[in-house]
Amino acid sequence: MEIGLVSDLVQEVMELRRDGDVPLHRQIYSALQQAIIQNQLPAGTKLPASRDLARVLGVGRNTVLRGYEQLLTEGYVLGQIGAGTFVADTLPDAQPLGRRRADSAGAAPATAVPISRRGHEIARHADSGDVQHGAFMPGIPDVELFPHDVWRRLIGKYLRRRHAGLLQYSVRGHAPLKASLTHYLHATRCIQAAPDQVLLLNGCHQALDLCARMLTDPGDIVMMEDPGYWGARNVFRAAGLSVHPVSVDAQGMAPSEADWALRPRLIFLTPSSQYPTGVVLSLARRRAILAKAAECGAWIIEDDYDNELRYHRHPLAPLFGLSTSDRVIYLGTFSKAMFPGLRLAYLIVPPCLVEPLSVGSAELYREGRLVEQAALADFIADGHFASHIRRMRMVYAERQAALRTAIEGEIGELVTLSGGQAGIHLVYFFQAAIDDHAIAAAALAEGVIVRPLSLYYQDRAISRSGLVLGYAGVAVDQIAPAAVILTRLIRAAVS
Amino acid sequence: MEIGLVSDLVQEVMELRRDGDVPLHRQIYSALQQAIIQNQLPAGTKLPASRDLARVLGVGRNTVLRGYEQLLTEGYVLGQIGAGTFVADTLPDAQPLGRRRADSAGAAPATAVPISRRGHEIARHADSGDVQHGAFMPGIPDVELFPHDVWRRLIGKYLRRRHAGLLQYSVRGHAPLKASLTHYLHATRCIQAAPDQVLLLNGCHQALDLCARMLTDPGDIVMMEDPGYWGARNVFRAAGLSVHPVSVDAQGMAPSEADWALRPRLIFLTPSSQYPTGVVLSLARRRAILAKAAECGAWIIEDDYDNELRYHRHPLAPLFGLSTSDRVIYLGTFSKAMFPGLRLAYLIVPPCLVEPLSVGSAELYREGRLVEQAALADFIADGHFASHIRRMRMVYAERQAALRTAIEGEIGELVTLSGGQAGIHLVYFFQAAIDDHAIAAAALAEGVIVRPLSLYYQDRAISRSGLVLGYAGVAVDQIAPAAVILTRLIRAAVS
Repeated sequence: MEIGLVSDLVQEVMELRRDGDVPLHRQIYSALQQAIIQNQLPAGTKLPASRDLARVLGVGRNTVLRGYEQLLTEGYVLGQIGAGTFVADTLPDAQPLGRRRADSAGAAPATAVPISRRGHEIARHADSGDVQHGAFMPGIPDVELFPHDVWRRLIGKYLRRRHAGLLQYSVRGHAPLKASLTHYLHATRCIQAAPDQVLLLNGCHQALDLCARMLTDPGDIVMMEDPGYWGARNVFRAAGLSVHPVSVDAQGMAPSEADWALRPRLIFLTPSSQYPTGVVLSLARRRAILAKAAECGAWIIEDDYDNELRYHRHPLAPLFGLSTSDRVIYLGTFSKAMFPGLRLAYLIVPPCLVEPLSVGSAELYREGRLVEQAALADFIADGHFASHIRRMRMVYAERQAALRTAIEGEIGELVTLSGGQAGIHLVYFFQAAIDDHAIAAAALAEGVIVRPLSLYYQDRAISRSGLVLGYAGVAVDQIAPAAVILTRLIRAAVS
Repeated sequence: MEIGLVSDLVQEVMELRRDGDVPLHRQIYSALQQAIIQNQLPAGTKLPASRDLARVLGVGRNTVLRGYEQLLTEGYVLGQIGAGTFVADTLPDAQPLGRRRADSAGAAPATAVPISRRGHEIARHADSGDVQHGAFMPGIPDVELFPHDVWRRLIGKYLRRRHAGLLQYSVRGHAPLKASLTHYLHATRCIQAAPDQVLLLNGCHQALDLCARMLTDPGDIVMMEDPGYWGARNVFRAAGLSVHPVSVDAQGMAPSEADWALRPRLIFLTPSSQYPTGVVLSLARRRAILAKAAECGAWIIEDDYDNELRYHRHPLAPLFGLSTSDRVIYLGTFSKAMFPGLRLAYLIVPPCLVEPLSVGSAELYREGRLVEQAALADFIADGHFASHIRRMRMVYAERQAALRTAIEGEIGELVTLSGGQAGIHLVYFFQAAIDDHAIAAAALAEGVIVRPLSLYYQDRAISRSGLVLGYAGVAVDQIAPAAVILTRLIRAAVS
């Protein structure tokens, strides 16, 4: 091949860019490498002398030499520079000569479907939206009112050379945070646990994944409230579990004898405030579930997701304290009381699970983020956490009242409220036959985010239509205008 | 039950603590609740009048009333306060009366083994140590020399009210970081990718978990280099994969026809610097693996874990750029170039996988941590990343030289070096029959951490004995003293 052909080729497959972003010798290397890979320069082709190519391309000879040297290093070309440089025979040696094709590395994959069955299942049930805040996105706190200055000071305190050890991998979490947290949970939730019973995780999904993988086998049954948290359902499915939905009544999750006969390996529930309906699990039901779980040898994950935000009376004591059977795992999160992007959740586990779950967490995820954990320990111990919650409770109570007025005052006869004692969202059941997905789509078109209640159901036979409305992240004066849009759409749907 | 009995009971099951930590009314509530749960106060028991109990306990009457009110709220007691308060009948209603036992909720679990088979498998292969730094822990960079002040300033820049949106959940990662990263990888690694091909994840383990779950099904085969990264092996096993070890020779991973006949669904490898031996995958081998993977319809994960730290010449171009088949996923991490606790890794995925893997990541993990991502984008774009790497490359080269002198000068005839062209560890194969686990244990007893090479092998038949020594986190003057201990132990083992 003549030098002209090679330099044409080089100029064809690339434009030498002289903006200094990628060095010229790398560009020459890349262009020739691609040409060799794509068989435009077959094995045995003699490359032009570096001096000649340099002249044709208008670059220095050393630039070409550096490009050639890299090709030589990587085995794309052979020979001594100066004596002649030839394209090497690098096509796969496992293939018989007759089958060599220029695009052998680009053969069509054996299947047109790029992902696995498991992957398809995960993607098929995907419920996460691309919009994660705005009126009335559920589960989102007000991040504007977070005490940024305090948090920045605490993070800054630990991002210093004298705390460099906090930049290493974590081994079982930051002890002061585990101590702050048990102290706090003891005072507010009557939870008696030693700091080593605390496992710190990157969010609830990871915490649920850890429990699923360490405590269950593929094909095992996990019992969940229906309606329930779709995110947990997806995490369990991804771990190979069969999710068995159990209906919810006025006393909370209501498993029947037939449900128990399936012998679940895991039970996931939200006793303090059923998600999303806000129903409180009655004491009798709590004790029945604990007894039955012990009979089955099932683990219980108690998700106390909005433990801090309760507007009336003290929050109910958690199942964790009720159980004398060491089968309850308590799950809490800082996503709502602090901010979602923090990605810090925790498990309080019975003593028998400390060792296996700690080992599992280290193996499955490798742990770090000790700077954030140290800052959070101070944030709790210095009282900033409690005072932020006190403040937000008042703010959110006002916003909830505004939302209730705007909805119930307008279309009170069309909806029934569920929840509102705690947390940062309200559920409205529709009294009339209204397609909640259609309402959600129509609202989104007008800039209002609502989640259809039916999305939270697994069992279509019991699914009810309604809306889940988050109010915490919406300023009071923005609530009424967004609610006006919503009530108009709902009225239109029934008329 | 007489008031005396109840108050005795209360005093027995608790000591009222007056240090202000837990309010007195919560302590009264807790003690009575526990007594009711444990059937020390059976259903129908009349609680003493609040005034009487207050006198006996030496507390205010309102304190007792608040405790009673909570019990009433939660259903442990019935009745109007004043008219008489009785313990409610809250034992599980599903059990026939005759079977009621005080400890019904505490029945022995159906199995004595608390965790699942999958959990046992994960725990059984656990290789993470409790000590994560010190001479000569592999994989640990020097965190003292990290530019703490720069990083603190960048994090602080984004922890402000005007950037409050960064505290929300993330939707597909922080765009400026994805742009910085593709720009950087293009200039340094010849990787041509659009920013939307970048997925940001909480560390390599999560990145591998995502690929395993979205791209493979339980029972599928993943092919891995042997020796190889045990952490990846554990993540794949936990996802239900069958890990097939492939031996490594001087050209890198060397899969035979028999290996390919197993039709792996996934191939995990470290072409630029085989982990832990440092061998570079030859070009012919690269192309053969790409071609065979395409034939099998297998995905390739290319782990370029120490891409930045290369002491001689440019790093080799990654497989990702070589492939025209869209079957290569590139994995990088900031654990070594920045610090391990950051927990940020990334995947560069072919266009066909952007959508499914992004959806999978959102469902499986929920994403956040945009503040760190924004700070990292600036850190790269402002040149801090490149200059930190330049500096550390010199520091680490000096440390590597010190370690080689200390080991090879003393026991050069007993060991053979592998690696050293890149990265932050060296591998020494033992020439004599030495038990590397025994050396590691003996060294640990003297405060020196070394990883036995045989730990990295899956297939005992090909396993070789040796040591993996990390030098990056050890100051030069600490290297010789630690090496003296090590060489003495090795000498002793052969004599």
